[in-house]
Amino acid sequence: MTLFPPAFSDRSATIETAAAALKAGLVTARQLAEAALARIDDPEGEGARVHVRRNDQRARKLAEASDAVRAAGHVRSALEGLPISVKDLFDLAGETTLAGSVALKDQPPAATDAPVVQRLVAAGAVITGTTNMSEFAFSGIGINPHYGTPKNHFDRATGRVPGGSSSGAAVSVTDGMAIAAIGTDTGGSIRIPSALCGLTGFKPTARRVPTAGVVPLSTSLDSIGPLARSVTCCALIDAVISGEGQGVPAALPIRGLRLAVPQTVVLDAMDATVSAVFARTLSRLSAAGAILSEIAVPEFSEVAGIYGRGGLVAPEAYFWHRDLLQKAGDTYDPRVKTRILRGRDLSAADYLDALSARADWQARTMHRLGGYDAVILPTVPVIAPEIAPLLADDAAFFAANGLVLRNSTLFNFLDGCGLSLPCHAPGEAPVGLMVAGLPMQDRSILAAGLAIEAVLAGQAG
Amino acid sequence: MTLFPPAFSDRSATIETAAAALKAGLVTARQLAEAALARIDDPEGEGARVHVRRNDQRARKLAEASDAVRAAGHVRSALEGLPISVKDLFDLAGETTLAGSVALKDQPPAATDAPVVQRLVAAGAVITGTTNMSEFAFSGIGINPHYGTPKNHFDRATGRVPGGSSSGAAVSVTDGMAIAAIGTDTGGSIRIPSALCGLTGFKPTARRVPTAGVVPLSTSLDSIGPLARSVTCCALIDAVISGEGQGVPAALPIRGLRLAVPQTVVLDAMDATVSAVFARTLSRLSAAGAILSEIAVPEFSEVAGIYGRGGLVAPEAYFWHRDLLQKAGDTYDPRVKTRILRGRDLSAADYLDALSARADWQARTMHRLGGYDAVILPTVPVIAPEIAPLLADDAAFFAANGLVLRNSTLFNFLDGCGLSLPCHAPGEAPVGLMVAGLPMQDRSILAAGLAIEAVLAGQAG
Repeated sequence: MTLFPPAFSDRSATIETAAAALKAGLVTARQLAEAALARIDDPEGEGARVHVRRNDQRARKLAEASDAVRAAGHVRSALEGLPISVKDLFDLAGETTLAGSVALKDQPPAATDAPVVQRLVAAGAVITGTTNMSEFAFSGIGINPHYGTPKNHFDRATGRVPGGSSSGAAVSVTDGMAIAAIGTDTGGSIRIPSALCGLTGFKPTARRVPTAGVVPLSTSLDSIGPLARSVTCCALIDAVISGEGQGVPAALPIRGLRLAVPQTVVLDAMDATVSAVFARTLSRLSAAGAILSEIAVPEFSEVAGIYGRGGLVAPEAYFWHRDLLQKAGDTYDPRVKTRILRGRDLSAADYLDALSARADWQARTMHRLGGYDAVILPTVPVIAPEIAPLLADDAAFFAANGLVLRNSTLFNFLDGCGLSLPCHAPGEAPVGLMVAGLPMQDRSILAAGLAIEAVLAGQAG
Repeated sequence: MTLFPPAFSDRSATIETAAAALKAGLVTARQLAEAALARIDDPEGEGARVHVRRNDQRARKLAEASDAVRAAGHVRSALEGLPISVKDLFDLAGETTLAGSVALKDQPPAATDAPVVQRLVAAGAVITGTTNMSEFAFSGIGINPHYGTPKNHFDRATGRVPGGSSSGAAVSVTDGMAIAAIGTDTGGSIRIPSALCGLTGFKPTARRVPTAGVVPLSTSLDSIGPLARSVTCCALIDAVISGEGQGVPAALPIRGLRLAVPQTVVLDAMDATVSAVFARTLSRLSAAGAILSEIAVPEFSEVAGIYGRGGLVAPEAYFWHRDLLQKAGDTYDPRVKTRILRGRDLSAADYLDALSARADWQARTMHRLGGYDAVILPTVPVIAPEIAPLLADDAAFFAANGLVLRNSTLFNFLDGCGLSLPCHAPGEAPVGLMVAGLPMQDRSILAAGLAIEAVLAGQAG
């Protein structure tokens, strides 16, 4: 690993190694920021599709401030001086939040930073810029017809989707434009791009991280978390953005770790790569001493039906969008607009029915999964699809979108938490292993994730 | 006061005095239960309209059990052995909950007690029976066309409403059928009958008392509390049904007590009695050393409009009722059915708009009222209306219902808490003084209520 400047695209460039280099004086925050901006500027790279609007001056000023703070003898957090990108739905004071749309272009700039941004800045992070996304966060694929689709770093010649909706977030990390990214996850939008791009992503229990100053998709389901290089990176960022400041938990012992392996729904329609990688991963965990329990979770079969009756996302999205649709609906991505408009005709009683059905489902599912340290499953049942066929065909897009979101969304509906860990071998297409848990089990899921990550370390590429 | 058996209709028959009589062996729980049942049986009284279904055997068995527990040397709570009625929307194992309707008559009996009932029984209370109510708790007047309207103890010859929806609850206490009653309050249904009948009622912050096993009206607004003879009675019952078990707080000092007296909306359309009693009450409080601040609360003017756009109650009620309306809608009180059906055509987005408008309103109103120990206002701007004209005329009924609910509902919308204290002089029509506070200020509102009650003690009838 080159420490000066660090090659962020190297998997070993974690928050810990970069922070150590800063501490040792091998590099400055300003140099790290310049390295990040240089990767964004690279005309051969994806920078133009990852960062569709720029404010490099802010990154440079924050980096200089960090170097000054450090020179004064202070380190505000593990993120001091580190380049971190934020998804373009967080308010940054003085800028207009676009949320991947053109419909918001004429909105006034935000008056204040979103609380998550305030916390990052107060912790010494250097905000590199805002990252492109699925329009209004409303798809798991990551295609954006307005600003282009950042290509997955895997098989870039072919052109595969990065996953969404935090598409630019993932590519900002894989391509060395930041050492970590802040995304949002309503149905999988952190875990899916993490899985498809070979990163480690963490969706916390929604209530733990404040959603003020963030363009909402679904107020019942939206959650905010990191896409990064390791479980430790995720834990360090979560400590800052949750305000809990608890740092990295100790890994749970892998011997005797009780892992539920649901057999219902989540293993359907896997492609050959995911199927093989997942089977190999289970063998490795078992060989390392984890206790794997293959269990039926019939509750998982109900979720598509509850969503099908109207669900929560469409009406909650429609509520936020209805005025904007009047003014600028013709500028929306038709694929997004169609799905938001599904919320228009839902009655209040149907919405209350969905809330009630969810509460009942949560109670039964928590009972079913309550006896395990974590639930493991493929984050996404397929490797990253190619961009071109999904751009060309609506039916193909919606089918792929449904499949990509299917597994991750179960844990949003549960109000749970979950990591996606890379579990493929070097040279293979990226595959993610979801390590998921019940509401507010975030610390123990991070602790289980550290144990599982150590087992996978030998094989992850 | 006669202690054997105590005359519950005497204002001095509080939980404290009855508990002292039990402790001293002057009376048994069984004797108290028989005294309560005798009042219910009295053919000259309101028992037939207060308790429309009976289970006297349960009351006798619970009383015997209490006497046995006491003989064994145990007193489970301040409620040990005391006759307490519960509104007929709490599930009692083995009985069919009617909620003042005939539509539920063919429903299966409840499998288990509602948590509030479980807590009362575990605390040693003797459940005297279930009390009549406005059908489905959907009015503040207390008229019930199916089972009759219990007459207010004031001016019984004329026949005045007891207030609702906890109508039977109030009359069960004023008429000595119980020493206290458990009611529910969605827009004032504890405080209104307390005010109109000269009792002390307490509506807690909704989340503090579990609503499971209770026929809901509005899941956003429903709260559960006591109607009784004093603030201490209310505090003792609240300690049991909330599960918090904290007992009675110390009274706040009256000297320097900061009381907000809102001038917006809540003083409009007072009748001569309430106007005079309220003015006299303010003078007394001021003379006792309380600091009264007459303030504008422009936020109060907004609430009718937010409700008018659809609000929360109608859609939440319609969600629960929609299947029952299909089956038995023709048996509903037309005045209730009309208002529930207003929730049918509300869209999910409009409902989310009401939730959002409420949250914004709450923040502004809490800011406005945050600097005071309590807010005081007339619970109801008029004395108890006569029954006959409201039975005869829908327009008169809806006008009276709106006026009666107007003040109390503001604090449900705030998610606040509040007492209604009797503040009239002996011989006057009952008038209630609301002592209200912000969400989760329950303990300090009870403490302020104790101070105010002591000032009013000389004048309350």
